[in-house]
Amino acid sequence: MCVDCGCHTSEEHSHPKRRISLEGDLLAANDRLAAENRAGFESGDIFTLNLLSSPGSGKTSILERTVAELTISVAVIEGDQQTGNDAARIEAAGARAVQVNTGSGCHLDARMVSGAADELGLESGSILFIENVGNLVCPALFDLGEAVRVVIVSVTEGEDKPEKYPYIFRNADLCLINKIDLLPYLDFDLEALKKSALSVNPDLFFIELSARDGRGFPSWLSWLEERKKVASGRRATA
Amino acid sequence: MCVDCGCHTSEEHSHPKRRISLEGDLLAANDRLAAENRAGFESGDIFTLNLLSSPGSGKTSILERTVAELTISVAVIEGDQQTGNDAARIEAAGARAVQVNTGSGCHLDARMVSGAADELGLESGSILFIENVGNLVCPALFDLGEAVRVVIVSVTEGEDKPEKYPYIFRNADLCLINKIDLLPYLDFDLEALKKSALSVNPDLFFIELSARDGRGFPSWLSWLEERKKVASGRRATA
Repeated sequence: MCVDCGCHTSEEHSHPKRRISLEGDLLAANDRLAAENRAGFESGDIFTLNLLSSPGSGKTSILERTVAELTISVAVIEGDQQTGNDAARIEAAGARAVQVNTGSGCHLDARMVSGAADELGLESGSILFIENVGNLVCPALFDLGEAVRVVIVSVTEGEDKPEKYPYIFRNADLCLINKIDLLPYLDFDLEALKKSALSVNPDLFFIELSARDGRGFPSWLSWLEERKKVASGRRATA
Repeated sequence: MCVDCGCHTSEEHSHPKRRISLEGDLLAANDRLAAENRAGFESGDIFTLNLLSSPGSGKTSILERTVAELTISVAVIEGDQQTGNDAARIEAAGARAVQVNTGSGCHLDARMVSGAADELGLESGSILFIENVGNLVCPALFDLGEAVRVVIVSVTEGEDKPEKYPYIFRNADLCLINKIDLLPYLDFDLEALKKSALSVNPDLFFIELSARDGRGFPSWLSWLEERKKVASGRRATA
C-alpha cells in the first residue's frame, strides 16, 4: 500500500514526496491469515465465495434468492461501512448471517472474516458467502481465504467497467451479470461488457441473471453445486 | 489512515496488532494542497465541483448532457483506475477534458487535481467538474479544493445506500438522483432514499434527473448557474 496517496497498490507509482511502501507488511500479514482461513474452510468442507461489486449491483438481492432456493446449508458474512440491514435481510431469507461494519474502512480483510466465521459456527458441507463492502477498487487486493471470487455487475452500469476497474475482474472466477429484467429499457450491450471483461481476464465465466424475477438462477445454482462438489471431491482425495 | 487494515479512516477502530495512524501526515498534506487549489480556483473565478458516486451511477452521462446544454465554458477532470474512455466522451460532447488514471488507487487527491488543472489551462469564469473515481468510500476524506461536493446515486441502487456509506453523503452539498426514467420498471422508493440521506446529512438538497431523456436537467442547470453566481459574487465583494 502506498501511504503517500493512500491507495492499495501493488505497483509503483510516482509521487513528488517520500513514498513508503507498507505493501509487503500489510498484504503479507493478510495473506498469511487468509491462508489459515482457507485451510480451515477446506478441512471443514466449507465452500467459500467472496462476492465483489460496486454498491447497488444487487449482491444482497442475489443472496436472498440464492438462500431461499438452495437446498444446501448456507451462512453469510455481510460487509458494509455501517448498518446491519443486509444481515437482517439474509436472516429473513432463512440463513444465518453476521454483519461486519468496517466504519470508514473500504474492504473486508482476512482477520474480519476469521472473526465472523468463528461467530457463525459453520457446519461441515455448507456454503459460506462473504459479501464484501460495495467497492470495485480496494477489495481486489485482499484475499479472504475464499475458494472462488465472484464479481457482480449489473446491466444498469456501463459496459466498460471491467477495463476501468481491471483489478477486481482480473482475479475473479465468475462474473454474474445482474438485473437482466431491465434490458428492454436500457441501451446496454451485453456483448460489449463481456468483451471488456475478457480483455482483462480471458478465463472469466459469465452467468446472466435477475435477482428480481429469478431468470438465470438455475444456471447459477447449478454452477454453485458443481463447484462445491469439485471442491469437496478434491478434499476427499487429498 | 489506518495502515493495519489499510482503510482511510478518521476514526479509531480496534486491531489486534500494532496500529500506526498516518492520518495526520497524509490528510494534512492533502488538505494543504487542497487549500492552495481552492485559493487558485477562487482567484481565477473558476467554479469547481467534485462529483462522487459508485461506479455506474451515470456521472459521465450526466456530464455529457450538462456540457452540451450549458452555455458557460466547462472543463472536466476525469478520474478512473484505467482507460481514457471518459475524457474522450467529454471531449466528444464539446468540453476540454483531462483523464487522470489512478492505477490501482481508489480516489483522486489534491495533487492530481492540481496537475490536471494546470494541464487544462482553465478560463476565468468557467466551471470545472472533477469526476472522481467511482467509489462510495475512499474519496470521501480527500478534499480536492472544490467549491461544492455533489453525490450521485441512481434509482437502480438500493434506497439505504446513504446509511450504509454515510461518509460520502455527510459532506455533500447536493444529491443528484439519476436514471429516474427507469422508475416505472423498478421497485424503488424515492422517499426512502431521501429519508436515508437526510438521516446522515439533514442539509442535503436533491435534484431528480435522467441523463438519458433530460428530465430534471433544467433544475440542475439552474442550480449550477445560481451557485456559480453566488460564488462569483462572494469573490467580487471579498
